[in-house]
Amino acid sequence: MQQIDATPLSDEELQGLDAYWRAANYLSVGQIYLLDNPLLGEPLRPEHIKPRLLGHWGTTPGLNLVYAHLNRVIRQRRREFLCVIGPGHGGPAIVANTWLEGSWTEAYPNTTQDEQGMGRLFKQFSFPGGVPSHVAADVPGSINEGGELGYSLSHAYGAAADNPGLVVACVVGDGEAETGPLATSWHSNKFLDPVRDGAVLPILHLNGYKIANPALLARIGDEELTALLQGYGHEPYLVEGSDPATVHQAMAAALDHCLDRIDEIQLEARSSPERPARAAWPMIVLKTPKGWTGPHTVDDLPVEDTWRSHQVPLSGVRTNEEHLRQLESWLRSYRPEELFDNDGRPVERLLEFAPGPDLRMGSSPHANGGMLARDLELPPVEEYAVPVKRPGAEDGEPTKVFAAYLRDAFRLNAEYNNLRLFGPDETESNRLSAVYEATDKAWLGDRRATDENLAPDGRVLEMLSEHTCQGWLEGYLLTGRHGLFSSYEAFVHIVDSMVNQHAKWLKTINRLDWRRPVPSLNYLLTSHVWRQDHNGFSHQDPGFIDHVVNKKAEVVRVYLPPDANTLLSTMDHCLRTRNYINVVVAGKQPQPNWLDWESAALHCARGIGVWDFASNDEGDPDVVMACAGDVPTLETIAAVDLLREHLPGLRIRVVNVVDLMRLQDSTEHPHGLSDAEFDALFTTDKPVMFAYHGYPWLIHRLTYRRRGHDNLHVRGYIEEGTTTTPFDMVVLNNLDRYHLAMDVIDRVPSLGTRAVATRQYFADQRVRHRAHVTKYGEDLPEVREWRWTS
Amino acid sequence: MQQIDATPLSDEELQGLDAYWRAANYLSVGQIYLLDNPLLGEPLRPEHIKPRLLGHWGTTPGLNLVYAHLNRVIRQRRREFLCVIGPGHGGPAIVANTWLEGSWTEAYPNTTQDEQGMGRLFKQFSFPGGVPSHVAADVPGSINEGGELGYSLSHAYGAAADNPGLVVACVVGDGEAETGPLATSWHSNKFLDPVRDGAVLPILHLNGYKIANPALLARIGDEELTALLQGYGHEPYLVEGSDPATVHQAMAAALDHCLDRIDEIQLEARSSPERPARAAWPMIVLKTPKGWTGPHTVDDLPVEDTWRSHQVPLSGVRTNEEHLRQLESWLRSYRPEELFDNDGRPVERLLEFAPGPDLRMGSSPHANGGMLARDLELPPVEEYAVPVKRPGAEDGEPTKVFAAYLRDAFRLNAEYNNLRLFGPDETESNRLSAVYEATDKAWLGDRRATDENLAPDGRVLEMLSEHTCQGWLEGYLLTGRHGLFSSYEAFVHIVDSMVNQHAKWLKTINRLDWRRPVPSLNYLLTSHVWRQDHNGFSHQDPGFIDHVVNKKAEVVRVYLPPDANTLLSTMDHCLRTRNYINVVVAGKQPQPNWLDWESAALHCARGIGVWDFASNDEGDPDVVMACAGDVPTLETIAAVDLLREHLPGLRIRVVNVVDLMRLQDSTEHPHGLSDAEFDALFTTDKPVMFAYHGYPWLIHRLTYRRRGHDNLHVRGYIEEGTTTTPFDMVVLNNLDRYHLAMDVIDRVPSLGTRAVATRQYFADQRVRHRAHVTKYGEDLPEVREWRWTS
Ligand SMILES: Cc1ncc(C[n+]2csc(CCOP(=O)(O)OP(=O)(O)O)c2C)c(N)n1
Ligand SMILES: Cc1ncc(C[n+]2csc(CCOP(=O)(O)OP(=O)(O)O)c2C)c(N)n1
Ligand SMILES: [Mg+2]
Ligand SMILES: [Mg+2]
Repeated sequence: MQQIDATPLSDEELQGLDAYWRAANYLSVGQIYLLDNPLLGEPLRPEHIKPRLLGHWGTTPGLNLVYAHLNRVIRQRRREFLCVIGPGHGGPAIVANTWLEGSWTEAYPNTTQDEQGMGRLFKQFSFPGGVPSHVAADVPGSINEGGELGYSLSHAYGAAADNPGLVVACVVGDGEAETGPLATSWHSNKFLDPVRDGAVLPILHLNGYKIANPALLARIGDEELTALLQGYGHEPYLVEGSDPATVHQAMAAALDHCLDRIDEIQLEARSSPERPARAAWPMIVLKTPKGWTGPHTVDDLPVEDTWRSHQVPLSGVRTNEEHLRQLESWLRSYRPEELFDNDGRPVERLLEFAPGPDLRMGSSPHANGGMLARDLELPPVEEYAVPVKRPGAEDGEPTKVFAAYLRDAFRLNAEYNNLRLFGPDETESNRLSAVYEATDKAWLGDRRATDENLAPDGRVLEMLSEHTCQGWLEGYLLTGRHGLFSSYEAFVHIVDSMVNQHAKWLKTINRLDWRRPVPSLNYLLTSHVWRQDHNGFSHQDPGFIDHVVNKKAEVVRVYLPPDANTLLSTMDHCLRTRNYINVVVAGKQPQPNWLDWESAALHCARGIGVWDFASNDEGDPDVVMACAGDVPTLETIAAVDLLREHLPGLRIRVVNVVDLMRLQDSTEHPHGLSDAEFDALFTTDKPVMFAYHGYPWLIHRLTYRRRGHDNLHVRGYIEEGTTTTPFDMVVLNNLDRYHLAMDVIDRVPSLGTRAVATRQYFADQRVRHRAHVTKYGEDLPEVREWRWTS
Repeated sequence: MQQIDATPLSDEELQGLDAYWRAANYLSVGQIYLLDNPLLGEPLRPEHIKPRLLGHWGTTPGLNLVYAHLNRVIRQRRREFLCVIGPGHGGPAIVANTWLEGSWTEAYPNTTQDEQGMGRLFKQFSFPGGVPSHVAADVPGSINEGGELGYSLSHAYGAAADNPGLVVACVVGDGEAETGPLATSWHSNKFLDPVRDGAVLPILHLNGYKIANPALLARIGDEELTALLQGYGHEPYLVEGSDPATVHQAMAAALDHCLDRIDEIQLEARSSPERPARAAWPMIVLKTPKGWTGPHTVDDLPVEDTWRSHQVPLSGVRTNEEHLRQLESWLRSYRPEELFDNDGRPVERLLEFAPGPDLRMGSSPHANGGMLARDLELPPVEEYAVPVKRPGAEDGEPTKVFAAYLRDAFRLNAEYNNLRLFGPDETESNRLSAVYEATDKAWLGDRRATDENLAPDGRVLEMLSEHTCQGWLEGYLLTGRHGLFSSYEAFVHIVDSMVNQHAKWLKTINRLDWRRPVPSLNYLLTSHVWRQDHNGFSHQDPGFIDHVVNKKAEVVRVYLPPDANTLLSTMDHCLRTRNYINVVVAGKQPQPNWLDWESAALHCARGIGVWDFASNDEGDPDVVMACAGDVPTLETIAAVDLLREHLPGLRIRVVNVVDLMRLQDSTEHPHGLSDAEFDALFTTDKPVMFAYHGYPWLIHRLTYRRRGHDNLHVRGYIEEGTTTTPFDMVVLNNLDRYHLAMDVIDRVPSLGTRAVATRQYFADQRVRHRAHVTKYGEDLPEVREWRWTS
């Protein structure tokens, strides 16, 4: 691998850098170990040591080195940088650095830059009531917690998008690099426009180990590693060594070179009338020992430069005198007396080494995206509404209707460069292609004459990696911009754990007063469980909703708009919100338009409501038929139609739910209905047949405390399905109109015997259905052609 | 990229291959389009066409090409092959090929190899009552459904493991290759032992497109692609073209070369006394047009060799005469009259072209793993039990106790090569390192003197990719071997969607009589939500349980053993089962041993039970205190201790749940308790305080139908946490002993006023706790040192 053969640092610069690095290392070790005696004013004693030693040392010296060197180039180039730390378990490193540069104290004024503050900094780390061990939201300058490994690079690219002046340095752990999400996210460079976007500088931290094993990339040899990184589209530069002075020179030289290359690439792209060919962006491979500068051996076992340095190299410090002694000499090896004055304040040359408040990474407004976020300009949503003269008389394709609105949203915000659409190559399949009238798909790879809608500066990002889409979007949102992820419902489970982490991030920033709310994470799940006509069983899973509702109520919203106008209204709302995870499930197939714009807007504002057009209960129902989701709504209305025809006296109330969280208790969720409202809608003593989009148990979990819960019968997806007709899907899961109607007959007291012939007719229809689809491969005409006419 | 410059096929061979390929293509198109007239005995008419055109053509001709060429080399080399199809949406291809070779008819005797059978084959595809559109479990020879893309390579490596004679050819879609799981799974070659394992031959299918976009790898140029694949550790060979004869020669030459290389690599490794250096395994890049041999243009738009060929190139066949005409000439272009005799039976030379029943891929017993699976030899589990003189008197580390048993299981099965342990570098951290006394960690990368327990033939597979671990394990199980995946509880969500697919696979094989049951997928989740001492909030998520219980009850089992002996008993059971997904959550930290072996074995067999030692209700409790999970059990028993001390008259029954599915209704889950049993245990009218390991709502979802449900109060993880002390974690979530005791006081009628002072003392203890941990960083002595003594 190439190395830059230069020693750009003067002695003074070298010493400055090294001092800064030593200071950060000292502060990191202090956080892991010290409860007291932060400046080592007296010899270390057991009572100065924390009773529980937590945290990770191994990765820390490398992170500190990177941070110090970035500070140098920021000062020299006066350019905005952000630093994304893949191995975020090296939390002490970034906490230390932000304290040194002053941004920590700005966020947490009590943790002053003096002995008392240093003592607090040390004590609070991984301590009850203190700060967690990762580069979490609590850490200024962070947009990547790094607890769950694998998302640093996609976050970095999301941050760089539409920020042409920004350089996002991204440290990737050599262990982290083994994760699937990270491994594919290298290809993000084919979606980065050198004109409109900023730059990402990956720094692969080849410290050789993960927890208890060597890292793969550290053990495939230089040739394979070089080929791999070139294959990813990069020009890699090696910085290798364990002698600090040598590494400082090499790192400075490599950084200078890489940043010059970035300037060249950007300048060329920005100044040439024709687009130059895609450039191989530079990157750094930093090969230094894990646990560098820590104890070389402990209890006669090698620690530095082995996996044993991963967590806490010295574990018996409170009880083992030798460990205590080793810790003290380790700490003193950084020569704290040169780094902090008697008051514990970093000495002047350290303070000067850090960039000023305008450019230091811990204060970057990009990392506190709410500071920069501008509300979207949104078109007047009612103008996109489909006319609905009679409920259910005509069909619409909800996502297609929404697409026109989204297209115009792109147009209205074009000058602000703050909106993007993400998807794993499903935008077209999800009928959102109207957006291509306003913008293209980002594509920096080779192009062919037959390609369509590809351009370097497209705002639609499509890569067949749900992980990368999600990571990009998170990075984009956390730096204060807006976005929407459209995915198949089943496959959004691929990012379950990423959603967890984002939900945790949002929960955390809600209680950090210096963090401003960021635009919401919006999902549009349109190829959903009921309409996988081409695909079948593997594509049928509505459980993402169950997954997200386990997260804190304050951050989670779930919407199931049943038709085009309700989808419009829902999306228009979601795009205006902050700090939420909005999950919207809606169909892309033609389906009846139920509500005109005015009713739709009211219905969505309420989130739940009686549908008068389908109800004949006059305030006193025999049965409540509730529904949530487009297909369940269709089946419910069709069931009502059947019941009205066959049992005209039956008083039916239809309740539709758009905002699923309305079902929960108002004490459990901010959107929850009060008991009085719930009881009024659903009654406390009448049977309620609930046709639900997803797994039926979720409705019980949301409503088990309600008074009428014992009367609630839910139909939903019970994991039955294959490649079959749309109506057969609902039949297989007992969610079809006939079954719903039979359910009503079974539950409404006294109907049973009276309606036995009707019930039998419904049951027979299901048999007829089976015979018909098996023979003809399409649904019964009376099902396909059914329309609400009552 | 290298190409093999040879034309190994004689004219006759070439024609034979081409005929086989044409036959498969014909049969594929037939499946997508034809309801009748399978042999084109008469001109195509609209009524011969399916009313709904489903399926994917684009990938199909490439898959058919691969299958035909594999048949050729299987016949020549008489070697066992398996074929894993990444883009499984090309289902028609493999259905066609297995019908041609005879394995389809063997599995489904009604679908004979004649005109009637062909007609059935066509009709059933993506048809109600028929077969789904992917290479699902319904397809003989398949171990990878390929509906959710990304897992083909890891499945292939799992299949090759411990099968030294097997070659697993694996077609990777160029779109699929963009997914994270696939991108990192290339590195699996560093875990494949050329001595003990078989070979994997990746075939990257560079057909240029995914759904509506070009594929990245097809647009980065030859140089980058070559570097990338070399960087992954492969020696790639290019097969490129669109002229069938040329491609046939090139493909045959490349295949011959690659298989020779595989032989060489294996021979060298197997015959040399010293291990040779890790070899670069060969692979093929197959660059042919998407939708090859299909309509070139449709409605004047280019289709072949563009993304438009992805699904159904001609969509209007029933109504558009031109489309119908195009379809007919497309079908006839394969010259069916040369391929099938008048009875629709494949002509003799096709039948001879396929390998015989012993070697044809659709009949491979490896792909129907239950046929080969041998039950594990397991050591006498009771011999590993820890002695428990008094409940709770001593601590044990459950996973460490289990590790000794597992070590011996490795020893007992060493000669059968049928057991493996998988994890993302957490085996050591999860205290399972005793297994290294019996086997090593597989590692073919470079090694250093300080490394430990690494060897080419280790049976522990550790890569920092939950996806790859899961994929390997699935491949290993589906080919009839046994395994265990140990992961942090929170991060197992990373494989949520993979678990979905596996659960669907298991459900499907349950109704396929020719598929034999495969060993269960076993999870041991040991670094769980309550003990993330080093890590905090990002590592806290017990929702995997919620995720799996949405799957079909027939395949899902969840166990929460509260101590060492119950863990032993549970694991001993799980390792003997088939066709399940067993989720076991258990601690790795020292915690009280509650049950001696005999009680533990009985308790686990029951799955739920009253704990006499902690109960004093004598059949008539004032309150039932239920618990599931190690930490909730500890807190419950400690709460009982407090209550006994402070409120001696209170009659408490303690119920512990190991098998979570016992809570469900017996009609919902095979493990479910009958209502009578449930009522007897929990009463129907007494307050039940339930301390649960995970999100509390799950307990409600499982029990909402039970009579006593209204009296059930659940405490669990409510998404509160950070890096803090173990007891602080339960306090933050109101699951601590004091809170549980207060809950009892609040719910047992009449206790309220009488026990007010006690309640206040408990509340004060929580305040004392807060003050103490904030000051000292560790838990109150009375909490740390508490022991059950009552
Ligand atoms: C997805 C995921 N799986 C497993 C872990 C557990 N884990 C924590 S740190 C670590 C090793 C990280 O290695 P590396 O990225 O090389 O970081 P460094 O060497 O810099 O510590 C692992 C496996 C995790 N944090 N995330
Ligand atoms: C994980 C996942 N995300 C999205 C999809 C939707 N999808 C189905 S096929 C396809 C394109 C596949 O492209 P490729 O792998 O190149 O297959 P081929 O070109 O051979 O059809 C996509 C994105 C999927 N099946 N799986
Ligand atoms: Mg590392
Ligand atoms: Mg492709």
